[in-house]
Amino acid sequence: MITIKELEEHLAKTFGIHFNDSSLLAEAFTQASYVNEHPKENLKYYERIEFLGDAVMQLTVSEYIYQRYPEMPQGKLSRLRIAMVQEDSFSKFALECQFDKFIRLGKGEEKAGARHRSSLLCDIFESFIGALYLDQGRDAVIKFVTRVVFAKLDQGWFEQEVDYKTRLQEYLQRHGDVEIDYDVTKESGAESERVYTVAVSADNKVIGEGTGTSKKRAEIQAAKNALTRLQ
Amino acid sequence: MITIKELEEHLAKTFGIHFNDSSLLAEAFTQASYVNEHPKENLKYYERIEFLGDAVMQLTVSEYIYQRYPEMPQGKLSRLRIAMVQEDSFSKFALECQFDKFIRLGKGEEKAGARHRSSLLCDIFESFIGALYLDQGRDAVIKFVTRVVFAKLDQGWFEQEVDYKTRLQEYLQRHGDVEIDYDVTKESGAESERVYTVAVSADNKVIGEGTGTSKKRAEIQAAKNALTRLQ
Repeated sequence: MITIKELEEHLAKTFGIHFNDSSLLAEAFTQASYVNEHPKENLKYYERIEFLGDAVMQLTVSEYIYQRYPEMPQGKLSRLRIAMVQEDSFSKFALECQFDKFIRLGKGEEKAGARHRSSLLCDIFESFIGALYLDQGRDAVIKFVTRVVFAKLDQGWFEQEVDYKTRLQEYLQRHGDVEIDYDVTKESGAESERVYTVAVSADNKVIGEGTGTSKKRAEIQAAKNALTRLQ
Repeated sequence: MITIKELEEHLAKTFGIHFNDSSLLAEAFTQASYVNEHPKENLKYYERIEFLGDAVMQLTVSEYIYQRYPEMPQGKLSRLRIAMVQEDSFSKFALECQFDKFIRLGKGEEKAGARHRSSLLCDIFESFIGALYLDQGRDAVIKFVTRVVFAKLDQGWFEQEVDYKTRLQEYLQRHGDVEIDYDVTKESGAESERVYTVAVSADNKVIGEGTGTSKKRAEIQAAKNALTRLQ
């Protein structure tokens, strides 16, 4: 198991970050399963710090793109923020920072492959941000995020990350409220290779259909197809 | 029409807030419909500032409850944050601050009653926060929010505001991922007094049912009933 001391060295070497309170760092990189296996050590797990880090990232990203794109309308700002703060983006940043190596997991979670799970990597990225914020304040967060996240804007990272369900919603609701529903209309295939068909409707009228290996993927396809037909 | 000058006087008298840049305040209280009716005045409407204000409120509320309740687990912090930042809460704060009087609306929107619409009041509360943040920074926001929002915590404002859908999700997913779906199973009554019946299912097994005058209300009832049965 890699120690928190080694994490501190990694942060110092790679990012020039030196924590004042290393217990915050330990909390941010510890999952509940590890705490449960070490009941005598009086450890804390990352969830509370992640709750804070999530809000710190929301504001840091919002303020940056608000200032950087002074002419961008709110709808586009919202879509860009969603693309930047989504699980898929944060888990990639966590991997790029090699945070996966330093997560403290219980044995069962380790065996189940939690260390490579996108949702956990995303959580750890947020909890690290929360710890950095508590230890060193907003300017340190902005400096770190500028390097790890904002630099990706110039590399076009978020342009393809279009959220079709949000885009469809904004399109349909541009003149007022419209009720949008996604309903599974068909499931086929054996359990392990199930394919879902989803219909999306606006005020009870079907406007698109999509298929996918999960309901979520089928919904995204349905939204994309509806947008293509409508626009 | 009440002017921005009068809004500045109201803020000074009621909250001791003096804006440096009153154009930010004008932007925060102006709806797109008003801008469209005054094309020569080169006005801006509130949506971009509201985008920023939303994130400012998320962090301000998150940081406050994180510090104030050091033992509160993340799930409960999340529910409390949702209750504090939801439309219903923000629109009440906007009314309490008398912000409704100062919104600049187009004639059509005025006639349609937009000034009393909860969603607009919520937006204006957020855009005011965004403007205050840009004009005077985070400390001024914290001071204002402490008086208008945090004081309500001691008055028990948010205790009843339980988000049943979130609670059901947290309950079902406490040991891992569970697919939760809400489906309309019945609609009855004429269009103006339609009643919806919604079934909520976990991994395709129905666990609760609810009715309501909108799909959303029926979903909340279904989640509440499912929770009662499960717990």
